[in-house]
Amino acid sequence: MFELDEAFIATSAALGDLPLSHVRLQDDARYPWIVLIPRRAGARELEDLDREDLAALTDEILAAGRAVRALGMSVDKLNVGALGNVTPQLHVHVVGRHVADPAWPGPVWGHSPALPYTPADLETVTAAAGAALGL
Amino acid sequence: MFELDEAFIATSAALGDLPLSHVRLQDDARYPWIVLIPRRAGARELEDLDREDLAALTDEILAAGRAVRALGMSVDKLNVGALGNVTPQLHVHVVGRHVADPAWPGPVWGHSPALPYTPADLETVTAAAGAALGL
Repeated sequence: MFELDEAFIATSAALGDLPLSHVRLQDDARYPWIVLIPRRAGARELEDLDREDLAALTDEILAAGRAVRALGMSVDKLNVGALGNVTPQLHVHVVGRHVADPAWPGPVWGHSPALPYTPADLETVTAAAGAALGL
Repeated sequence: MFELDEAFIATSAALGDLPLSHVRLQDDARYPWIVLIPRRAGARELEDLDREDLAALTDEILAAGRAVRALGMSVDKLNVGALGNVTPQLHVHVVGRHVADPAWPGPVWGHSPALPYTPADLETVTAAAGAALGL
């Protein structure tokens, strides 16, 4: 049975579930950033998903990209990454990057501690992201 | 018409072409690392590919992962990333990571200058990677 790794709970807010993935907003006000976690027990690598799940994940990555663009921050480039070196449960980051963001042009992962949203902003942004994803 | 960004030529060696992507070995002896560059003129984001190309890219990412594992270095985790902050032409990195590699557990991108293969090693590793990909 799929069980969400607790590491995601400390760093992100739940947006809901798409057909394959549990979807979360990364709690870092510096980047519009969505995390997709396929609800498949034991999955660590993309190769652990079957063909149908991989197609669903592709759709969900594109949808997350559209949602990231809908959050009102400037997005010059999307960054999509499946790393999992720290938290091995399979997950895909979809991050909107801007030429003036703190980590540009490097990756956001491991760059610097998150700057959490204020509670009011977190509520606004999770509502906007959820709406953009139809959740 | 698709034209490869010259930035890839300085940092990687050609392995050949899969149905969608031009495939290269990153010239960094510290990581088994393949780069897929979909041969679609003007593509910058995954959303610039149509459904059929996205399915082909998924297949090629899985094949690159298998090839990375076939290169004889220890792989504890695959890292897959489409960033493009520095070189915007759409490309996907598939990197084999090891808990004792220099950048672990952070991302390889932007971590430190590449350690190029010796000419003899580059020849051996490109041959092995090409064979693993059926190129």
